[in-house]
Amino acid sequence: MIVIADNLQPLNPEIKRALDEKAKGPIQKTVKACEAAGAGMLDLNPGYLSARNLDRMPFLVETVQEVSSLPLVIDSPNPAVIAEGLKACRTRPIINALSLESEKLEKILPMAVEHQTDLVLLLMDERSMTPPRFDEKLALAIELREHCLAAGLTSDKLIFDPVMPALSWPDAFAQAADVIKTIRFLSSGAVFQESVRTMIGLSNLRSGQRHIYPPKLDEICLSMLAGAGLDYALVNVLQAGAMDAVSLISQML
Amino acid sequence: MIVIADNLQPLNPEIKRALDEKAKGPIQKTVKACEAAGAGMLDLNPGYLSARNLDRMPFLVETVQEVSSLPLVIDSPNPAVIAEGLKACRTRPIINALSLESEKLEKILPMAVEHQTDLVLLLMDERSMTPPRFDEKLALAIELREHCLAAGLTSDKLIFDPVMPALSWPDAFAQAADVIKTIRFLSSGAVFQESVRTMIGLSNLRSGQRHIYPPKLDEICLSMLAGAGLDYALVNVLQAGAMDAVSLISQML
Repeated sequence: MIVIADNLQPLNPEIKRALDEKAKGPIQKTVKACEAAGAGMLDLNPGYLSARNLDRMPFLVETVQEVSSLPLVIDSPNPAVIAEGLKACRTRPIINALSLESEKLEKILPMAVEHQTDLVLLLMDERSMTPPRFDEKLALAIELREHCLAAGLTSDKLIFDPVMPALSWPDAFAQAADVIKTIRFLSSGAVFQESVRTMIGLSNLRSGQRHIYPPKLDEICLSMLAGAGLDYALVNVLQAGAMDAVSLISQML
Repeated sequence: MIVIADNLQPLNPEIKRALDEKAKGPIQKTVKACEAAGAGMLDLNPGYLSARNLDRMPFLVETVQEVSSLPLVIDSPNPAVIAEGLKACRTRPIINALSLESEKLEKILPMAVEHQTDLVLLLMDERSMTPPRFDEKLALAIELREHCLAAGLTSDKLIFDPVMPALSWPDAFAQAADVIKTIRFLSSGAVFQESVRTMIGLSNLRSGQRHIYPPKLDEICLSMLAGAGLDYALVNVLQAGAMDAVSLISQML
């Protein structure tokens, strides 16, 4: 399991300020801290950018590349932002992410094909909704994969993300269970003829509701995902204790 | 995931003394404590018994049945002990376990067929050795299943146990990784045409070496197994914290 640091995003107030002020220092400091913590990749997400701020993505990419050679994930819901990120990357990144939304199919998928990058497929439908149940998630995975194959991306380029629910959602635990099961079936080759790669954003669990559940829950959820065969975990690698759990998990992978 | 208490065995000094003295009280007290802790089943293992002590298994079964209606697992490497246990059971237990050892194939398998019980298949070869690697474990699972089908036990009666290594074994973590992968492939239907049930004895991890690794390791290992699709976890349910982890895991299953 490869740990991708999700720290380079504007929910982190230091990064938000650095992007606003185009200040490299705090970004590069965070990058070095993520490397030291053991991140294997870096997710770069400059947030929802207005048209006049599109240059924040290349600024972020270039700033990071000055101090790190870790592989990058170019992360945005906005095709124009992804396009700017791709231009700035010195090595081939992962694009995060496609879904069934028509704008993404029309604009993000062709970029992945053109650059032959790995592409994250978020299991979200045309309205950007995450279906709660296992069967629906598998159906979405199949449909998204077909779009990709038809467009000229081979299956080995695809990374499926069944979307971890936030614990604040109704029925969150049942949805988490179906996410874990989806990872297990995708990774063991029980869905397609082959084992395919999977990704999860673990921090989603805590969005909007940080304090009700014990910290141990995150470790247990990540361990369950790892046991299910997860390939890429997007994690706040600077959160206390997070990488201790990763280190134990990695010994049993 | 069903948690099976592994507390009723002579490594527990109170149970050893109670079996030696045929004292029901300490056994029944432990049974009630396991029930209160949330055990879903009870594993009954009176230890390696000499021929004159075979009556310890029926004593244990009867003593337990007086105070609990939890389903039972009759656990012994000795076919004669299993036979005595089966006679005493009021409801159909799980038999634990078959392996490729010839004595077990000749004597334990026919008992499971006669009583049409569920049967645990330990992935151990004819010399009672556990092969370390995933491919070898799968080969053993296939071979053991063929013996069972040929003898007249249907696949839905079988529970595969790939044998958790003790951390004191050389290469233990790599072996644990292959155990987790074996669970994942068996449970997702990637090995046989169907999803089959699996079991793990978690306490094996600590046999012979209790204090070197942090307590968190057990939780993480159990979480990984649960994420891999484990059906039955043999656990010391009275160990501090063990059932807290189980409770979090169960919410995401």
